[in-house]
Amino acid sequence: MDYKINTLQLVCVAQFTAKAGKRDELVAALAALIPDTRRESGCIRYELNVSLDDDNKVAFVEKFVDREAFDKHCAKDAIQDYFHNVMPELVESHHVEVFNQVIA
Amino acid sequence: MDYKINTLQLVCVAQFTAKAGKRDELVAALAALIPDTRRESGCIRYELNVSLDDDNKVAFVEKFVDREAFDKHCAKDAIQDYFHNVMPELVESHHVEVFNQVIA
Amino acid sequence: MDYKINTLQLVCVAQFTAKAGKRDELVAALAALIPDTRRESGCIRYELNVSLDDDNKVAFVEKFVDREAFDKHCAKDAIQDYFHNVMPELVESHHVEVFNQVIA
Amino acid sequence: MDYKINTLQLVCVAQFTAKAGKRDELVAALAALIPDTRRESGCIRYELNVSLDDDNKVAFVEKFVDREAFDKHCAKDAIQDYFHNVMPELVESHHVEVFNQVIA
Repeated sequence: MDYKINTLQLVCVAQFTAKAGKRDELVAALAALIPDTRRESGCIRYELNVSLDDDNKVAFVEKFVDREAFDKHCAKDAIQDYFHNVMPELVESHHVEVFNQVIA
Repeated sequence: MDYKINTLQLVCVAQFTAKAGKRDELVAALAALIPDTRRESGCIRYELNVSLDDDNKVAFVEKFVDREAFDKHCAKDAIQDYFHNVMPELVESHHVEVFNQVIA
Repeated sequence: MDYKINTLQLVCVAQFTAKAGKRDELVAALAALIPDTRRESGCIRYELNVSLDDDNKVAFVEKFVDREAFDKHCAKDAIQDYFHNVMPELVESHHVEVFNQVIA
Repeated sequence: MDYKINTLQLVCVAQFTAKAGKRDELVAALAALIPDTRRESGCIRYELNVSLDDDNKVAFVEKFVDREAFDKHCAKDAIQDYFHNVMPELVESHHVEVFNQVIA
């Protein structure tokens, strides 16, 4: 199978497992990040999802025009506030991973 | 309603009306452009559609990371060949228009 | 070129040209339709765009899971209100066209 | 933050970690699944990605019009063949998780 890796655009899957009883609060906190992020000029996709397999788990599926746009997003006050102040209260474990898309 | 216009990413809607009897040939010619275009690093979306309202009409819905990526796409040999050699044989009328997305 | 037409999902391109001096009012009226439409379970994409080629022109690029979901969308009070009450005030001409996507 | 969960459309994140030395073979095997899956009428998105954080890891980001379309996809011969015959040879560990999107 012939394919090409798009090394410009950046995909991110950011997974968060809520502490017991904190799922709804976590979804609300993450949903609050969506409107401003979608307005970033480098944002292609910023979709929040709740797991059907694990009641406490949520995941962002993200795509940005390039690494610089992603880094700029991560440096935003609201994102930094989430990681430093909100996440420690609400999240048991998390995993943020970046990818490049394979175009078949 | 509060909204923001994304002036970085470029949206294109390219509409083509086939000459009588040339619709299928036109779809095949345009579909042939899809695999390589989707592999361009600046391509976000490149979707071909056939009209349900006009049997002879097709339309590309496109999105690129920025104007430069779109211009680079338009300058590709295969795209130039389509506009200069294929389109005159198969297309009665066409309209290519570029846009910026409004993020609500 | 081998391709397949997806006859389930429905694509719509809805173009509106504002009356003189009404472009911003039109964009605001259309942007106001976005949040609720994106919440419709059958909505895949509902993106508003402003033309860079014609100052008065805007276009929705839409995709729904099927014809039924699209019809349900069109029958919504807010959409009916737009077509019957808002559009006549703000729009000079319009063209709404539905498509099926060609998958290459 | 006001949000709604789209309980119709189904999102899937399918992660695979290749056995040592098998990453390229795994990417090729998964990329081979893309063209036919994109042609399924219920497929909205089927994007393969390679991790920038873990050399051996790849992930599909998928979206289908509903659970039935996803189940139909999973039952396809090519997908069953991947899980039963290809994956055991190439994959060290995997995690397939389904989600519903949160619309903010």
